[in-house]
Amino acid sequence: MKELILGGARSGKSALALRRAEAFAQSGHAVAWLATAQALDAEMAGRIARHRDERPAGWRTLEEPLRLAQALHDCASDGACVVVDCLTLWLTNLMLAEDAGLLERETAALLAALPVLPGEVILVANEVGLGIVPDNALARRFRDEAGRLNQAVAALCERVTFVAAGLPLVLK
Amino acid sequence: MKELILGGARSGKSALALRRAEAFAQSGHAVAWLATAQALDAEMAGRIARHRDERPAGWRTLEEPLRLAQALHDCASDGACVVVDCLTLWLTNLMLAEDAGLLERETAALLAALPVLPGEVILVANEVGLGIVPDNALARRFRDEAGRLNQAVAALCERVTFVAAGLPLVLK
Amino acid sequence: MKELILGGARSGKSALALRRAEAFAQSGHAVAWLATAQALDAEMAGRIARHRDERPAGWRTLEEPLRLAQALHDCASDGACVVVDCLTLWLTNLMLAEDAGLLERETAALLAALPVLPGEVILVANEVGLGIVPDNALARRFRDEAGRLNQAVAALCERVTFVAAGLPLVLK
Repeated sequence: MKELILGGARSGKSALALRRAEAFAQSGHAVAWLATAQALDAEMAGRIARHRDERPAGWRTLEEPLRLAQALHDCASDGACVVVDCLTLWLTNLMLAEDAGLLERETAALLAALPVLPGEVILVANEVGLGIVPDNALARRFRDEAGRLNQAVAALCERVTFVAAGLPLVLK
Repeated sequence: MKELILGGARSGKSALALRRAEAFAQSGHAVAWLATAQALDAEMAGRIARHRDERPAGWRTLEEPLRLAQALHDCASDGACVVVDCLTLWLTNLMLAEDAGLLERETAALLAALPVLPGEVILVANEVGLGIVPDNALARRFRDEAGRLNQAVAALCERVTFVAAGLPLVLK
Repeated sequence: MKELILGGARSGKSALALRRAEAFAQSGHAVAWLATAQALDAEMAGRIARHRDERPAGWRTLEEPLRLAQALHDCASDGACVVVDCLTLWLTNLMLAEDAGLLERETAALLAALPVLPGEVILVANEVGLGIVPDNALARRFRDEAGRLNQAVAALCERVTFVAAGLPLVLK
């Protein structure tokens, strides 16, 4: 089954994904945590390290900032639970990469992969479109791309959950 | 019936309004799409053109950036479905117009019109108040006006739907 | 009972808290309104005065920008209803205070107080994490702190309600 967990910054999205993965682990699934963050500065490095420390020691952690569909094909299997944390940082990485076609190719690859991946896949994403229109064009484009990606992924997931203040709300 | 469809940027608000209007069209309603956007630059012109291309060819498209209540009185009727896309751009237009009383007059006219309009009316609006407090005073004022307008319109609608990642959530 | 009312700017959070308190007042509760705002400029002073004018004359109003747990201990009692409006301004005040340990001490004191306070306590807070990542580091830190606080308070409340366009949505 595929689930999209959607929420704001510090809403408890990753904690909910962690609880879902713990439940799968208790029923015998091997858990792989697919982190998309890149430690480009000290603030981000600290955030990544804190998140890693919150996860059980027995879980695999993979870091893949760009080739997400390939990484998912490599680690998804029957009896496994893969958590992608998160789609929005991955989108940021794609937009910042100096390769104009990468965003389109990689998002197409993810959307093609999702329906055929075996096992349990949990995807975490940020909702970023509920504030004031950003001043700069890149932020507006990012907001549009993130919204489009969330819609496309949500359409391919059996379950979609919105999180606010740590509390889940079923969207689908 | 009146419905308010509320959501973030690229949340699938207009697509949901389009599906609602298609359902009314199938049961014999004439559909009018009341667009409030103004093509002030190339980015906005492209967005308007893309949205228009997504709609069935037989539907009327009307463009009215300011006098929304009058436009609704002109095209709403029993057996018609009018979609207003969207209230938040209309509010932007009113605030940018160089006429201090226009915002108050036009929002009062809309709120007076809604309870008496015949037929089906679907209003699309952005939720813009769920980010960090904006730096500049105009953006803060816009955020306040948009929130107030959404509350007032929601109170006059029989149905209010929040959209995230393309998925509807019933608020009323 | 404790309730957290969570929503965006001008979403109708305070109005919902006011309706809750009116219902408690009708069943004989004394109502205290614990305002955390500081009138640091004319814009904020106007907002505070408008909010006060909307509340029944018989209610107590207390202003406490920093020592929230102490103020709650002082005014909460069986048969009383206390409304805290709002946690997010209080967090702002703590972050702006020139005392590095104050934020940690005061949030710990609030989280320790909540489970033991008698009577009815209604806490209003802003959700601020659903927009684009802010440009400046202080705003990002504020967004993280606000999200963490909302999660911690929500976990200690029996009821959590999200408000959009004036309409409540039960989270818990």
